[in-house]
Formats: sequence, C-alpha cells, structure tokens
Amino acid sequence: MSADHDPARRPDYALRRASLRNLLVENRVDALLVTDLINIRYLTGFTGSNAALLVYAWDSSEDRTLISTDGRYLTQVGVQVPDLRAEINRACARRVIEIAGEWQTGRVAFESHVVTVDQHRGLAALGTGLDLVPVPGLVEQLRMVKDDYEVDCLRAACAAADAALAALLERGGLCPGRTERQVARDLEWLMFEHGAEAVAFETIVAAGANSAVPHHRPTDAVLATGDFVKLDFGAVSQGYHSDMTRTFVLGAATDWHREVYDLVSAAQRAGREALAPGVSTAAVDAASRQVIEAAGHGDLFVHGLGHGVGLQIHEAPGIAKTGTGTLLDGVAVTVEPGVYFPGRGGVRIEDTLVVRQGGPELLTHTSKDLTVVD
Amino acid sequence: MSADHDPARRPDYALRRASLRNLLVENRVDALLVTDLINIRYLTGFTGSNAALLVYAWDSSEDRTLISTDGRYLTQVGVQVPDLRAEINRACARRVIEIAGEWQTGRVAFESHVVTVDQHRGLAALGTGLDLVPVPGLVEQLRMVKDDYEVDCLRAACAAADAALAALLERGGLCPGRTERQVARDLEWLMFEHGAEAVAFETIVAAGANSAVPHHRPTDAVLATGDFVKLDFGAVSQGYHSDMTRTFVLGAATDWHREVYDLVSAAQRAGREALAPGVSTAAVDAASRQVIEAAGHGDLFVHGLGHGVGLQIHEAPGIAKTGTGTLLDGVAVTVEPGVYFPGRGGVRIEDTLVVRQGGPELLTHTSKDLTVVD
Repeated sequence: MSADHDPARRPDYALRRASLRNLLVENRVDALLVTDLINIRYLTGFTGSNAALLVYAWDSSEDRTLISTDGRYLTQVGVQVPDLRAEINRACARRVIEIAGEWQTGRVAFESHVVTVDQHRGLAALGTGLDLVPVPGLVEQLRMVKDDYEVDCLRAACAAADAALAALLERGGLCPGRTERQVARDLEWLMFEHGAEAVAFETIVAAGANSAVPHHRPTDAVLATGDFVKLDFGAVSQGYHSDMTRTFVLGAATDWHREVYDLVSAAQRAGREALAPGVSTAAVDAASRQVIEAAGHGDLFVHGLGHGVGLQIHEAPGIAKTGTGTLLDGVAVTVEPGVYFPGRGGVRIEDTLVVRQGGPELLTHTSKDLTVVD
Repeated sequence: MSADHDPARRPDYALRRASLRNLLVENRVDALLVTDLINIRYLTGFTGSNAALLVYAWDSSEDRTLISTDGRYLTQVGVQVPDLRAEINRACARRVIEIAGEWQTGRVAFESHVVTVDQHRGLAALGTGLDLVPVPGLVEQLRMVKDDYEVDCLRAACAAADAALAALLERGGLCPGRTERQVARDLEWLMFEHGAEAVAFETIVAAGANSAVPHHRPTDAVLATGDFVKLDFGAVSQGYHSDMTRTFVLGAATDWHREVYDLVSAAQRAGREALAPGVSTAAVDAASRQVIEAAGHGDLFVHGLGHGVGLQIHEAPGIAKTGTGTLLDGVAVTVEPGVYFPGRGGVRIEDTLVVRQGGPELLTHTSKDLTVVD
C-alpha cells in the first residue's frame, strides 16, 4: 500500500499557511500570490501542473484563501485540497488577481523570483487597482526547515537509494567491463524496486578520467581496473528527494587513490561536524574546504559544499563560500566536497543530513569507507 | 555506439544563430541575451545547467557571439561549443550584460517570458547604459520548425516508444491483475532497453475509472477485465521527446467501448488530416473537436487537441480552440483528442507528427485499431 493514501500521513498544510501568514504580516502585505508550483504543493498538497494560490495575511479562519487551477484538475483539486475554495480557470494567476481586486485587497505580494517580466506585465495590466509588491522567497524560507512528515519522506527517499546501492554491489553490478550507462540504468531500476516513486535527478556514473568531471553524464565508457568510479544519485519519495555520492576504486587501490580518498573523506567529515543550528552556511563550507586547501588542492574543489534538499533536489540554503544564511534546527542539506584531477580522476563523497541541536541526523547510511570492488 | 559522439550528426548551430540574427534585425534590436537553457542548447549544443548567450544582430562572422557558464562546465563548454568564445563566470547573465555594456551595444533584447522580475531588476541595476528590451519567444519561434537533424531525433524517440509498447504487449505485460505502477515501470524500462536516453515525462497508465482522468498518475490500482486502460508515454533521444497515447480494452470490448473508441479514433483522424502548412492551429483543433461535438460529447473533451514537441515535451505551437498561430512545413506536433466519462472511463489517442506539404509524416507507428488484450 502506498503512503500517499494514508490520511494519517497528510501534512498539516493549514499550519504551514499559518506560518506563511506570519511572514506576510512581517512583510506588511495584505496577501501573497503564490505561483511557484512546488510552493503551492507545499502549502496545499496540490500536485497539478497549472495553479495559483492566494493567501491573506489576516485570515486565520481562511475564509479567503483561494486556489485556482484548470478544468483538467477539477477532480484532483477537490481530493487533494478539500479544505480550500477552488476557482476553475485556465488563466489561474490572472483570475486570482482579478478576485483579489474585487475584494480590494490593497498590497498583494508576488513571487518576484519566479514571476516572469511578461507575467508581471500581464497582471499589472489588469487594472485591478492592486499594489503588486515583489517579495521573493517567502515560501522557500519556510520550506528550509522540515517538519516531521517531511523528514520521514526524506528518510524513505534516502533509504531507497541506500538499498539500491547495496543491491547493486551485492549482485556484482559495479565491476570492470560494464559501462557507465549500464550501471546508471541498474541503479535507477533498483531504486524503483526499493520503493522510489521517481529518480531525483539523472544518475551520474563517472569512471576513470570521467570521474574528474563533477557533473558527468553516463556514457558507453567501460569501467576499468584502476578507475575511480563516482556514483551520484537519488530517489524521490512523496515528492522528497535524496542525494548521495559514493566513489569506489575498481580492482586495487594505489597510494594515490587512498591519499585522494582520505583527503575528501576528512573534508566531508569536517563539513558534517560543522552542521549545527546558528552556524553560518559560509562557515560550514569553510570547515570542509580548509581541509582540502591545507593539502594544497583548494583549486581542485571547484564547487560549493552543499545545498538544501526537499521537494526540490536543490533548494535553500546553499552551502558555499559566498553563502549568507545561517542554519536552523530541522534544515535538510547535503555535504559533498570533491577533489578533481582533470584527465585523471576525482572523488566526491556526499550525504543528506538534517541539522539538529546536538549533532546532525545522517539520512544516507551507506558506508563511506574506501571500498575496492572487482 | 551513441549518436552523440558522431561528429557528422552535429546540428548546424551556426545556421540556427544566423536565422536568429534575421529575427533580431526584424525586431530592431542590436543583440539578444538568451537565458533559457533549452534555447541555449538549441543555438549552441551546450547542455550545462547554468549559462547565458549573447547573439548580435549584425555579426555574420560571429566575432561577438559569447557564451557564459561557470567553472563546473569549463571542459564541457569547450567540447560542446568549440566555435564560440566562452566566458567563465558563475553569474552568467550578469557578466554577459556587463560585457555588452562595455561594447556599448545599445538595444539588448532579453527573453521576457523567461527572465524573472528579480533577474531583470538585477540586470537593470548594473548601470551598463544598455536599453534592455523585452522580446519574448524569438528562439521558440525558430524551434517550431524542425530541421532534418531534429526530425531524425524525433523519429528515434518515437521508435523507442513504439518498440517498448510492442515488447510490453508481446510479453503479456498489459493484462488484468497487474497494477498501473507495474505497467508504467515496465514501459519505462523497455523504452530504455530500446534506446531511450530518458523518459519524456512521467508515464501515465490509467485503468478503469482512472482512465477518465486526463493526467492520472499510476497507482497500485489493479487492471481488471472490462477496463479501458490508457497509456500515455514517451522517450527522449538526443534531447528530443516523443509523445504517444494508446487506449486498450481489457478482456472483451462492449458496444460502449467500441462506440467511445470509434468516436475518438474518428476525431483523431480528422485532426491528423487537417495538419497542413498554412492552416491555423485553431482550425486543426476545430476539425477534430467538431467530430466529438457532433456526437454530443463536446463537454467531455476537456483539453486542447495537441502541442508542439521537440527539445521540450510541450512547446510551441499549442493546438487549441484559442490557438492563434498557423502551421508551417516542418512543425512537429501531437494530435490527441480524448473523451472522458467521469467515474467510468475514457479514451485518448495520440500521435506525434511532422507537418508536411502533401500530408503530415506520422512518427508514432503503433496501430490505432481498437485492441483487446487479456
């Protein structure tokens, strides 16, 4: 039986909207037009491909909260969002703004990081008399901190990925002679077999020199003895994404393999150990990066340390040199340092974790010890 | 061997940019900032996840065409876009606009249907002295008409989907007792086995009453004798998407099954036969829709007739009642009427075709005869 049919598992969408209303009051707007579909899913449970949502600041009874979608989703919106008034109209955002105008709403915030220049012009041209105020990222700010339901979903997604990798190794699916594509295909299939509803992103399998390319797409390249082989993959459960990277050595590990692996492993541990409520994301990046810099390889760690993960594979907060935010209890992130020697090979080790007082909760449990397969 | 490594198969990106330059001249702008990643892929071949492209109107030697991406893609941009100058900078669009400012470019169009309000503000605030002009959809207009390379890719994607469905039927994978999810999983796996590089969208398998939901997600519902079962799925080849729907009857067909199926089949044929260069998309929709309306079921055909298909699963032109465009030779579209009886079942039949003088080229070859499986 699928968890999405268990009513006890329904997240508390009303509570999420109440948290949003607090932010609207803080931002001194009367309402927010939500047009980002992931944000709408987060606030209502609706998963259709066309929707708009209007949430009022002072409206604890939710008399005026309104979701709009088109005729294809008439049944679906009733099932998924039984608690809100639905307006059926193909031009969702336009219709919602017209209604807000009829209700003389005043200052209506819109998601200026999502709404395009053309969409904004269209809404402004409706002549509703509303003051459309650009306010980016409000719902994303809420989404950073995961509630219990969300952490359960992340756990399930990470468990599917862990189980798939274990099954791949057990059946000898990672060995010299197979191609990157074959391994990627197997891993994705095994994630489905272990309960994933989708893959979180296109699986990366990168062997030999390809392992030095941070975002390599699997090819027909054949895995060979002496290669690093890097697997970066994830599963989706109830819309929530897992993200994990493991790097193996094929055949036998040389001193060079061990040296690079141990360095990245130490940097990854330092990054994990730096995760705590109140710590700046830049400080977390620095804690890991300085391990690699101290070894003289700072220039080979060419990306940020990690990112938030949830209903999207990449979401707030970013964990990078230039990061500006601070971690909170319940934020879900990846920690994924890498060192890449162009033309030769590279190592990345990545976990998904939840920031907690007293130490982060690790969600991806596959061993991070150097593993040689053949 | 994979076709993406065959240099003879490289599309003529320079020709595509030359066509774009003609549109820039027509639109009286000096250059276009391209930020849509699919459009960048179409114009250059670059497939990374962060990029911006600047194309000048009067620049047939392409001295000033410029692509920008970040350090993760340093190697990749050199391989995929050997013919253009690359600027490595994490803030791609910003950097490109700064350079355009240094070159005193004058009127720079931007993709106002893609650029968000926040992004536009950021670019405008750079103080470059440029006149940023909102011009939506220029590259999408070019992309509607597929060149030979693109039609080959679409053929390959459609062939993978045809082959997967044939294999599913041959192995008895579509029969009472299996779940929607199992069938969807098999179909996706078989597309990979037959050469797909990805699935074009989440496969729809909808049985019984679920077949009346146009965009149903597969569940653990069990297929039963007497059901309509609707399969809507597609494969990706070299980035190009196929899209096909077939509806089967499980066990034995009743008069009602035959009546509904024949109606949708006739409507689908009428839609296909209406495809020709110079015909308005609204007229194509009407040709099919009137067949269903004449049978008294117009209210049960709740969506548009079809859509363009290519590097995206949904692209220009839309084929709907409210469509405004006109078909051209080489435009690739779907034709997919449906009739849905809520709570009982529905039928949709969909092909992918290329509009041609003398009659459309059918790319999805699976039989559309009413097929009973058990």
